[in-house]
Amino acid sequence: MTKNFYHEILAEDKDTNARAGILHTPHGTINTPTFMPVGTQATVKTLDQENLRQTNSQIILGNAYHLYLRPGHKLIDRAGGLHNFMNWQQPILTDSGGFQVFSLKDLNSVEEEGVTFRSHLDGSTHLFSPETVMEIEHDIGADIIMAFDECTPFPCEYQYAKQSMEMTLRWATRCKRQHEILNEKRIHRSPQALFGIVQGSIFPDLRIHCANNLASMDFPGYAIGGLAVGEPRDNMMEIIAETTPHMPAKKPRYLMGVGLPHDMVEAVGLGIDMFDCVVPTRNARNGTAFTKHGRLRLKNAVHSEDNQPIDENCRCKTCQTYSRSYLRHLFQTGEYLALHLTSFHNIFFYNQIMHEARDAIIAGDFKCWQNQFLTSYKDR
Amino acid sequence: MTKNFYHEILAEDKDTNARAGILHTPHGTINTPTFMPVGTQATVKTLDQENLRQTNSQIILGNAYHLYLRPGHKLIDRAGGLHNFMNWQQPILTDSGGFQVFSLKDLNSVEEEGVTFRSHLDGSTHLFSPETVMEIEHDIGADIIMAFDECTPFPCEYQYAKQSMEMTLRWATRCKRQHEILNEKRIHRSPQALFGIVQGSIFPDLRIHCANNLASMDFPGYAIGGLAVGEPRDNMMEIIAETTPHMPAKKPRYLMGVGLPHDMVEAVGLGIDMFDCVVPTRNARNGTAFTKHGRLRLKNAVHSEDNQPIDENCRCKTCQTYSRSYLRHLFQTGEYLALHLTSFHNIFFYNQIMHEARDAIIAGDFKCWQNQFLTSYKDR
Repeated sequence: MTKNFYHEILAEDKDTNARAGILHTPHGTINTPTFMPVGTQATVKTLDQENLRQTNSQIILGNAYHLYLRPGHKLIDRAGGLHNFMNWQQPILTDSGGFQVFSLKDLNSVEEEGVTFRSHLDGSTHLFSPETVMEIEHDIGADIIMAFDECTPFPCEYQYAKQSMEMTLRWATRCKRQHEILNEKRIHRSPQALFGIVQGSIFPDLRIHCANNLASMDFPGYAIGGLAVGEPRDNMMEIIAETTPHMPAKKPRYLMGVGLPHDMVEAVGLGIDMFDCVVPTRNARNGTAFTKHGRLRLKNAVHSEDNQPIDENCRCKTCQTYSRSYLRHLFQTGEYLALHLTSFHNIFFYNQIMHEARDAIIAGDFKCWQNQFLTSYKDR
Repeated sequence: MTKNFYHEILAEDKDTNARAGILHTPHGTINTPTFMPVGTQATVKTLDQENLRQTNSQIILGNAYHLYLRPGHKLIDRAGGLHNFMNWQQPILTDSGGFQVFSLKDLNSVEEEGVTFRSHLDGSTHLFSPETVMEIEHDIGADIIMAFDECTPFPCEYQYAKQSMEMTLRWATRCKRQHEILNEKRIHRSPQALFGIVQGSIFPDLRIHCANNLASMDFPGYAIGGLAVGEPRDNMMEIIAETTPHMPAKKPRYLMGVGLPHDMVEAVGLGIDMFDCVVPTRNARNGTAFTKHGRLRLKNAVHSEDNQPIDENCRCKTCQTYSRSYLRHLFQTGEYLALHLTSFHNIFFYNQIMHEARDAIIAGDFKCWQNQFLTSYKDR
């Protein structure tokens, strides 16, 4: 067991695979299921660290690729790690950068050793390998760090997906080995938990093979990667349902890059404990607020004199203080405050969904709560 | 006396013309001297209304020209006025739009009746006259509203400045008359105080003539307009020094569009009670923080690993929480949070200057405090 890191499961739903728990980390506990706001570049866009607490955010996500480029992992290490650099003393998870480097257009080559790519900032050439990524993630110093994996695109041929998944497994072994070497060298720093990532595109047999092999390597947590990359929603849900039974029940399960509110609510029922997604912040900046009834497009003319808040039942700062009419005006005039207030609401709302799901699991009526949520929420 | 509106002078400095007081308004009191953050479009850029209180802002400024175009003064009126529209229940002042319309490139014509101009948004043609501007400012509903004046550019010929100042005086009479008519019609709304504006470019005799004539019209407050438009700093200070003795001592004196920290500190000594300026927010967005020692350019490489706050003695959220290194990273990566955190600090700092000046006036050692401030502050 990684020091100071374990998942305490408090309740398991009788009707579904949902569970409620407490994830213990060196920077505090996280009630699960949980949503992790995305703070790519050491900031969750438009929110300060006090706002993160005000939105009930328990853990945030940083990105190894972006932080490696700016301000640089060595600078972050010299500042005492990302917690100190950004002064967020609660849990942090870093993504390995796999998703980012495989998304780059100037990806040079993928080989057994690693990935050579060009920076999106200045075109300079870099190598990410399991070993270099572990060094970067250790320097950043998050509580949870992700293994370096190949994130396959959609669609993806079966043979490519199989070979890629097998390489991801070999990379997971190398990540674990390097992580252990670095742990020895860096005993003065806060311990970190390395999660393995299940790949295999939309092929259940590949996913199951990958999950079983990772399970045998005894990681403190496991993620499902390579979903929400363009595949139909039914495929995504099928893969989650097929994969989670092969992910160790006592360890936290993290569904990467998902998702929309109804996706998360469905996935909790399939046994997922952790989520991250840029949707609540990115869509906020485009003028979309999320509510229990679906999306609210604040720029629409219908809101020009609408004195209601985004959601009259929401207890967030934005809904307690400002009208849709005012928010629409801020979007119309291109004011920064529009982005902040809508991001604040969306993150609060995402955390609220997880909070309600957790309460329902503990109360033993998750299925009922889930049905109500999915009936009310129309994603259009 | 305008209902619910008067300036209570608590202390007058023995060595200078500085005064400390309390400006009473229908939406609460304001300790003077005071700085008013500029909220052109119903928001002080990057700060929410809670942040305004956290930075000790007592009154904010809105702009009749911008609010007339978007969202429209009639919409604001239907929302119950600007206080309700933006949910800021503390004092508000609106500028008349004179400065904006005279700054427009597509200014069509200036005539005795008013100014015909084209909107900077869509090129549509509009007329601003003393009467229409009073209607707009009444609909917006600020506690303090400014007369419609001609703001002369710099440099400006004596003859033009004289004729313009005389028209500004005639417009002031028309504003006052229309204000009184509207007051009768709108007794259900919060009362508003109309301030006269002294013009006259950099010519002391014109300024004195204008001030004396406005004083005889018995406005509840007076402003000096048309400064900080490009004239040398010595000219500006000379005009302030020549004009304030002719502005009624018992009424608040407002120096429009000024300024930099040392300008404000010097002008307080000349008898000014109120200031507004976009500098603390605009310069923040360009990466400039203000401190007692002058400007700090946060983008500079020297701050890349500087773990100090902007100002170690500042009690604002930004300085209590974040390092220059982190702020520089946020600017380098184009993150919104950089703009917010630096604006927050700058507004806090501007309010802090006014707070310290006021304490010094009340304590009877303003001259000493002023000398210390001006010795420490290097504007470069």
